Amino acid sequence: MNFPPPQWVKDAATEALGTVAGNHYSHPKGRIRLREAIRDVYSSQFPNLGRPLNVETEILVTSGANEGQYSVFTAFLEQGDEVIMFEPFFDQYLPSVTFNGGVPVYVPLHPPAESNTSPSSADWTIDFDELRRAITPKTKMIIVNTPHNPIGKVFTREELEKIAVLSQEFNLLVMSDEVYENLVFDDKEHVRIGSFPGMWDRTVSVYSAGKGFSATGWRVGWLIGPPSIIGPTLAASTRIIFCSNSPLQEAAAAGLEQAKANKFFETQLKEYAERRDVLLKAFDDIGLRYTYPEGSYFVLLDISRVQWPEGYEFPESVQGRGRDFRAAWFIAQEIGVSTIPVSEFYCQEHQEIGEKFTRFAFCKDIETLKKAGERLKGITKYLT
Amino acid sequence: MNFPPPQWVKDAATEALGTVAGNHYSHPKGRIRLREAIRDVYSSQFPNLGRPLNVETEILVTSGANEGQYSVFTAFLEQGDEVIMFEPFFDQYLPSVTFNGGVPVYVPLHPPAESNTSPSSADWTIDFDELRRAITPKTKMIIVNTPHNPIGKVFTREELEKIAVLSQEFNLLVMSDEVYENLVFDDKEHVRIGSFPGMWDRTVSVYSAGKGFSATGWRVGWLIGPPSIIGPTLAASTRIIFCSNSPLQEAAAAGLEQAKANKFFETQLKEYAERRDVLLKAFDDIGLRYTYPEGSYFVLLDISRVQWPEGYEFPESVQGRGRDFRAAWFIAQEIGVSTIPVSEFYCQEHQEIGEKFTRFAFCKDIETLKKAGERLKGITKYLT
Repeated sequence: MNFPPPQWVKDAATEALGTVAGNHYSHPKGRIRLREAIRDVYSSQFPNLGRPLNVETEILVTSGANEGQYSVFTAFLEQGDEVIMFEPFFDQYLPSVTFNGGVPVYVPLHPPAESNTSPSSADWTIDFDELRRAITPKTKMIIVNTPHNPIGKVFTREELEKIAVLSQEFNLLVMSDEVYENLVFDDKEHVRIGSFPGMWDRTVSVYSAGKGFSATGWRVGWLIGPPSIIGPTLAASTRIIFCSNSPLQEAAAAGLEQAKANKFFETQLKEYAERRDVLLKAFDDIGLRYTYPEGSYFVLLDISRVQWPEGYEFPESVQGRGRDFRAAWFIAQEIGVSTIPVSEFYCQEHQEIGEKFTRFAFCKDIETLKKAGERLKGITKYLT
Repeated sequence: MNFPPPQWVKDAATEALGTVAGNHYSHPKGRIRLREAIRDVYSSQFPNLGRPLNVETEILVTSGANEGQYSVFTAFLEQGDEVIMFEPFFDQYLPSVTFNGGVPVYVPLHPPAESNTSPSSADWTIDFDELRRAITPKTKMIIVNTPHNPIGKVFTREELEKIAVLSQEFNLLVMSDEVYENLVFDDKEHVRIGSFPGMWDRTVSVYSAGKGFSATGWRVGWLIGPPSIIGPTLAASTRIIFCSNSPLQEAAAAGLEQAKANKFFETQLKEYAERRDVLLKAFDDIGLRYTYPEGSYFVLLDISRVQWPEGYEFPESVQGRGRDFRAAWFIAQEIGVSTIPVSEFYCQEHQEIGEKFTRFAFCKDIETLKKAGERLKGITKYLT
């Protein structure tokens, strides 16, 4: 992101720095003000619980969503346990699972069939028979990520219900990574799998102050789940980081406390929709297909038609990787726009699905996105 | 601690909050300003290197010293690898090692023989034959902690040289936890084992902005070591936390940059020496023996003579633990001073060494320490 957090949230950080306790250790569970703010904002999102979240046993503040997820793996994975993740997947999942002795099992989100128009992220689909076949006696957990990085897909209630049924049938834990919960466009609905009947007890939901308040460098996230998941994860997190930083927990608390009165998330969503549309218009202008994102701040551009001059020289770092690594390198060098090759989000075996795409991030101000659009016009002479 | 970080360090945090980049992701290695400040302060401390520290390969900023140490274990321990730690040990070492598949091996620091006067932390000694016998073909690493938590011992050059010789003879890594480096009293010398000839390549030294700048809740620490240790540890830390928080890294950088001009560490040391002396005088007044700490902000009080009334009721949480757990509970309830029972810092097998002591922390303002001293007078009627 190249814009700052809201001033009133930053003010709370400065205020905390002005106290004594705001500079010292927090409870490993998180500061009570933040846990109470989380309870007040999220309890209504989990109606299946039938009561407010318990701040002592059902909420854990972590050092970013990242460390929260790592701690869940540390707490629950035994050597050889299998963890199902949909491909493409947020790239941290893979090593976080394997570092903790787990074995990733990949189930592809299938891209839509070729056509002349740009598909929607909703057109990337799960083959539920394939998902069922991926489950073995060693499967411990399934990771859901909605809105999805990098596709921008917002999982539908129907899709999540099918995942829920399988997780109950095979007694699986569900880690629901919802860090882009506030970036769901076009009046689509963000659905929380942990809020379904029978799912509270097996689901840990993952959230991020960095994503919510434009403060990715604050390293404050939180987990919501039953005591049977939060308890062991707290034990792991207490050893891994001991606690999250204090002043920025206070700031995140202020953010949650005042977001509604400030219409913060509504305003932010409109701003992101505008950013998205600037970028998509640039893609339309150059005539390249993309996956229209219903959520998140990512969009996949189909780069199959980008063809660099014969003999173009690539550095060693992109050799032996998917074609998209070379395409993204070429676009960065010659066009001046930096993106992430999407085969990075696939296991090696399935990299050919990803190498048709590169991932753009539109968490930039309009000015920058317009400039990117201008530059992208230069690509038309390299299209087949 | 019940006092704040210096204002000029907090100002740098506020300044960073006022920028865009200061609120967003840092490089997983740490922000360049902080890495350069670390280079400028520490390069002279490692004369064996013969050149300044390389900010790209020999310094890693971590989310507190705690996460730095955890990441070293994640990077280097294979299932069954043995890690030697001196007892008593900082209590996070044990689970951090076992969570990463390692096996802790304990070598006691031997308390001085009984006497009527209070010994010095220097009187707690290593039996080097015992240390040698603890080394097996599976030993991967040895943890050194100087100044020592909880004893307050400042390891001498001679002791560290003997450890260095053994680590070279048996090809061991050394993790040197020096988070209290700036709290060495009475003109004693803080010696860095990583600065010895032949030790740079096998030593990772651990430091803490929280301890250095009275900001334990900032979660900023750093590791210094050779690329062969920093590289794999960076890989682990990048997955565990991705990066440390940005605004407080900027603040820590300002702290290191300006500490010398502000005579900060000298002044802080004098303040801590005064705090220590207030507490020790209180112990002298009630006639209890303690271990005079040459470093850190801890002191062990010998509580063998404390005897609670027969039939005094203890909660379940201190049952089945060492006698010190009951003594510390009794002192907290009846005298109003909170301490940590020292058998907590020993493995179960050796807890009888620790249960003679409870650990006081003098990282409190003088007023609070004097009040604690007043309260402690109430203990005299429970002494045998």
